[in-house]
Amino acid sequence: MKTEIHRFKPLPLNKVKLNGGFWGEKNRLAREKVIPVQWRILNDELPGAELSHVIKNFRIVTGETNGQFHGMVFQDSDLAKWLEAVAYSLTTNPDPQLEALADEMINLIGRAQQADGYLNTYYTLKEPEKRWSNLRVCHELYTAGHMIEAAVAYYQATGKDKFLKQMCKFADYIDGVFGREEGKKPGYPGHEEIELALIKLYRVTGEERYLKLSKFFIDQRGQEPNYFVLEAEAAGEEFSADNKHFGLKYYQAHLPVREQVTMEGHAVRAMYLLCGVIDLAIETGDNTLLETAHRLWKNVTQQKMYLTGGVGASSYGEAFSFDYDLPNSTAYAETCAAIGLVFVAHRMLQLMPEREYADIMEKALYNGVLSGISLDGESFFYVNPLAVSPEVCEKRHDHSHVEPERQKWFACACCPPNLARVLTSIGEYFYTVNQNEVYIHLYGNNIAKVGLDEGEVQLTQETAYPWEGTVRISVSTEQPVRFTLALRIPGWCRQAQVCINGEELNLSTGLERGYAKISRWWNNGDRVELSMAMPVERIYSHPLVAANLGRVALQRGPIIYCLEEIDNGPNLAAISLPSGSKLTTQYRPDLLGGVTVITGEAMRVSADNWGNSLYAPQPPMKVKTGFTAVPYYAWNNRGRGEMLVWIRET
Amino acid sequence: MKTEIHRFKPLPLNKVKLNGGFWGEKNRLAREKVIPVQWRILNDELPGAELSHVIKNFRIVTGETNGQFHGMVFQDSDLAKWLEAVAYSLTTNPDPQLEALADEMINLIGRAQQADGYLNTYYTLKEPEKRWSNLRVCHELYTAGHMIEAAVAYYQATGKDKFLKQMCKFADYIDGVFGREEGKKPGYPGHEEIELALIKLYRVTGEERYLKLSKFFIDQRGQEPNYFVLEAEAAGEEFSADNKHFGLKYYQAHLPVREQVTMEGHAVRAMYLLCGVIDLAIETGDNTLLETAHRLWKNVTQQKMYLTGGVGASSYGEAFSFDYDLPNSTAYAETCAAIGLVFVAHRMLQLMPEREYADIMEKALYNGVLSGISLDGESFFYVNPLAVSPEVCEKRHDHSHVEPERQKWFACACCPPNLARVLTSIGEYFYTVNQNEVYIHLYGNNIAKVGLDEGEVQLTQETAYPWEGTVRISVSTEQPVRFTLALRIPGWCRQAQVCINGEELNLSTGLERGYAKISRWWNNGDRVELSMAMPVERIYSHPLVAANLGRVALQRGPIIYCLEEIDNGPNLAAISLPSGSKLTTQYRPDLLGGVTVITGEAMRVSADNWGNSLYAPQPPMKVKTGFTAVPYYAWNNRGRGEMLVWIRET
Repeated sequence: MKTEIHRFKPLPLNKVKLNGGFWGEKNRLAREKVIPVQWRILNDELPGAELSHVIKNFRIVTGETNGQFHGMVFQDSDLAKWLEAVAYSLTTNPDPQLEALADEMINLIGRAQQADGYLNTYYTLKEPEKRWSNLRVCHELYTAGHMIEAAVAYYQATGKDKFLKQMCKFADYIDGVFGREEGKKPGYPGHEEIELALIKLYRVTGEERYLKLSKFFIDQRGQEPNYFVLEAEAAGEEFSADNKHFGLKYYQAHLPVREQVTMEGHAVRAMYLLCGVIDLAIETGDNTLLETAHRLWKNVTQQKMYLTGGVGASSYGEAFSFDYDLPNSTAYAETCAAIGLVFVAHRMLQLMPEREYADIMEKALYNGVLSGISLDGESFFYVNPLAVSPEVCEKRHDHSHVEPERQKWFACACCPPNLARVLTSIGEYFYTVNQNEVYIHLYGNNIAKVGLDEGEVQLTQETAYPWEGTVRISVSTEQPVRFTLALRIPGWCRQAQVCINGEELNLSTGLERGYAKISRWWNNGDRVELSMAMPVERIYSHPLVAANLGRVALQRGPIIYCLEEIDNGPNLAAISLPSGSKLTTQYRPDLLGGVTVITGEAMRVSADNWGNSLYAPQPPMKVKTGFTAVPYYAWNNRGRGEMLVWIRET
Repeated sequence: MKTEIHRFKPLPLNKVKLNGGFWGEKNRLAREKVIPVQWRILNDELPGAELSHVIKNFRIVTGETNGQFHGMVFQDSDLAKWLEAVAYSLTTNPDPQLEALADEMINLIGRAQQADGYLNTYYTLKEPEKRWSNLRVCHELYTAGHMIEAAVAYYQATGKDKFLKQMCKFADYIDGVFGREEGKKPGYPGHEEIELALIKLYRVTGEERYLKLSKFFIDQRGQEPNYFVLEAEAAGEEFSADNKHFGLKYYQAHLPVREQVTMEGHAVRAMYLLCGVIDLAIETGDNTLLETAHRLWKNVTQQKMYLTGGVGASSYGEAFSFDYDLPNSTAYAETCAAIGLVFVAHRMLQLMPEREYADIMEKALYNGVLSGISLDGESFFYVNPLAVSPEVCEKRHDHSHVEPERQKWFACACCPPNLARVLTSIGEYFYTVNQNEVYIHLYGNNIAKVGLDEGEVQLTQETAYPWEGTVRISVSTEQPVRFTLALRIPGWCRQAQVCINGEELNLSTGLERGYAKISRWWNNGDRVELSMAMPVERIYSHPLVAANLGRVALQRGPIIYCLEEIDNGPNLAAISLPSGSKLTTQYRPDLLGGVTVITGEAMRVSADNWGNSLYAPQPPMKVKTGFTAVPYYAWNNRGRGEMLVWIRET
């Protein structure tokens, strides 16, 4: 059954010019710092960083250098994601030198590509005869997907089609290998990614085969007889389909996608699959895919998501845990998984502008994604727990997956270049538009050029968001244009005001799915002012989240706060927040690149006068203490120490 | 340096006749149920239990049956501990049939013993040429120690010396293998046990070489160059001495014993080592050992012990974690480790009667030890956490070491026969005596015959302890005897009264190290009545125990309480106890074999009216709810469900 899909397309990156402000600065950091530093890492030139070897792998394939392949089977994808980030950077900020570097890499990739179109340095160097023999584990299609995404982005950025053609050749070859037809492999990737990439490729090339191939991968997933089971049997490999942690659920291959009720398994894979499902639903109007997307979205966001937008609670399998199981200190919440959730939310917004989608996209961006990168852009968290004690991480094996400090790079380095591509393309997440509607989902300084049926308009946002709740939007247009401007009133905002040219809009007639919609003729110079009340909110968890019972978190606007040892002393767990105590905010331009901090009075359980005994029939003394909370994303930028999001409330 | 050690010897098992009551019933259970059921298991005759194969291993060695060795390298020790339990049972309750069974096993052991005295079915069957080549891992000396303990107990029980002689032969052989002398191995066991066993053997045989050998093992431990490091090198095995979890600390071999400041590594090993250290201090008066024992005792009991007397917080390495790290739901707290703590405390009492030692011995016995066995004596916990959610245990890998229900047996079956030997010998833990002092450490119905310098007296205890705080002690003696009766006033007891022949003793002049000491001429028929106030106490943790901040536990007398799902519904974490709320007790003869339950009013966070969102700016609704707490040791005797000791306090 086919449903008419509302098509709200993201306003493309080249139409959104960031002008400083929160995301503008993050974008600048990504372009000016992250891309060059990662270039050094990909070339193994950064001292103290985990060896990448990715470019060397390509040069070994081409015979330009000698050596052995080093790295993960998906090591190529680090270069692909870096190239994708470069493409976004070039889109907004052309840079001939950087473009030349990218061209050089694209040429290298071309030389490393096999005659039949195949591209993968691991298999080419290590096991050339084993191509496609272990789809479940070996990430060939995943790596291909990242290469395709990069090629599409580079084509869109530069208009140059060399990389795109290389990847079309690769995709054509893949299309010849996979499918239900006699002689083809009825398989699909162990790590999803190519599904969404093929739809991007379809969109720029118009080649229906790519859409069909994506659909095949999604449709085929989890069908009986199970491909992964057969594949493992054929290879004589042990694989237990029912294994709790690494069985078919880990791969979202335990059921056909349309029959999946809960989001299971490896969180990044799950998010990328969901992206492909939504993209395919958008392109095909397939109602069963839409329902699946909505069902799985609900499960993730209503049962399996940290307050920060982090997903994947379990380090074992880097996976979703069961509903409401959201432990704080052992959380995995991989940076890539939060990024995946942003990708999903961004696609949900393309189905239908619902505030909820943008709320979660914003929540993940400002918190669980951004925590992945240091303020200087040079170090990264892979794992993003909501409570960290360095001593516990160091000494307890069940916390051994948690690095209490950001790292320069990783043996499995998926997160850092993923951050690079998100931050360089952040402008694309601000708006979705159709013929006569402009939805604003994110607030931040930028100038957007929107082509509507009735002509092009320019919208300029000015704001100190997320530290202040006022957003000024001015309209530039050569002639009056009739269109609808839809402003997201975030879910966290309980009081908002919209003024048009100084006159207050009556919001009491209701928002539409969380958006204040203004349909009118717009004239050049029209000004809209959105004022969002932004008090500190005490946030509570669903009562089934055992880890957070009796605990409260602090949020202001989209920003989740945390306590850090450097501000509050050691043993943060001893601090409790009296319910109803006064909370004060202050913008501190000097601190952490400029943040609003929350201060107030708390209680601290004191060991003074307790004595030596471990247990006693009297409660320990409590003393008043001041506390300072800082944005979660900015923690661990002032040295090693404890961190805590969910504070006991007393 | 040598110190004069106060020698308080335990009143031996054959002098203490249990007469029903709490421990009397546990003792009866052990004799009448546990021993016969374990006999069936050791013979692989109990359906549904993990295969033991222990007796078959011996019969394969002797050639009476064919087959392959099966089990752990220390599988023999299961039979040894069972025989030790049988010996204790025969001590208090002679049983010719059981004795014949034991004799049959002892004959079998004799036939399996090698000509040179060596005994170990694993090595004899599997790697005869590799004896003593892997002391660090392979438990030969540990297994020897258990055999020696069993032989000593059997000799004391029956006067028959066959088993004892077999084990003397084994010990003599070991004495020939180990030592500092040229041609001997300067090694020591990876799992301590033989140290304390050799001292037992020395005490019954008077053979100084056994004491010397024990001293050698203790003195040599952790000396440089490190034996385990050399041994691993010689075998070409990888062993990282500094490994956080499985390095030398795991074996308490990171430093010479006298230089160890904190108790580290595998908890059972650590406890058995400490037993040996104290035994050796008792025998030698070595002041440096005494100091070591006190220092390590303090570290364990003041920084590393669960409220239940469980020790060893970390499942990884079955080990002590760092100070104050006492997580509840992931606790390992192996039953054997709590038993080890009882052994240690019992030995500390032999150094000096201090209430603290008896308090902790009692705490571990009533809680962390007894939780290891079901009320019917047929199933066992290896791991004893203080919070259990079956769903979490089943689904979360970091809880995969926790069985939410007791098991019939284990592949590594150290705990069940360890429980058997503790419960069959429980009478030995009640009293310590010297020439003219009788210390009562445990209360329970029994008749004790005490030989003092001035003659023998008989003490009869009558009490409903631990459910009631009144203990009646009557004295039988043929003629008046002057001695000191010292009654432990437990640390948990804030109000106690002692009456002699109806006249109240003035306790206000102070207790001596926690004991009410009554020195007088005792006449036949003298009656002492001890009344201990036994209200429910709310117990709190040291503020550095992060897991218990804001939480309270309930204790009454020596019994730690818990909430169970069967009484309180699911999601126990949602329950909180208002501080100061009324707590009521009721003895329920029908419940769990007869227990006092605690009931009262609590609050429960309710999911009603919360809605679907994971997070919200309003706290969830709280509703009043009744609650029932039952003794921790008795949990999981009414089916699968959640359990919780530390309850949030609001």
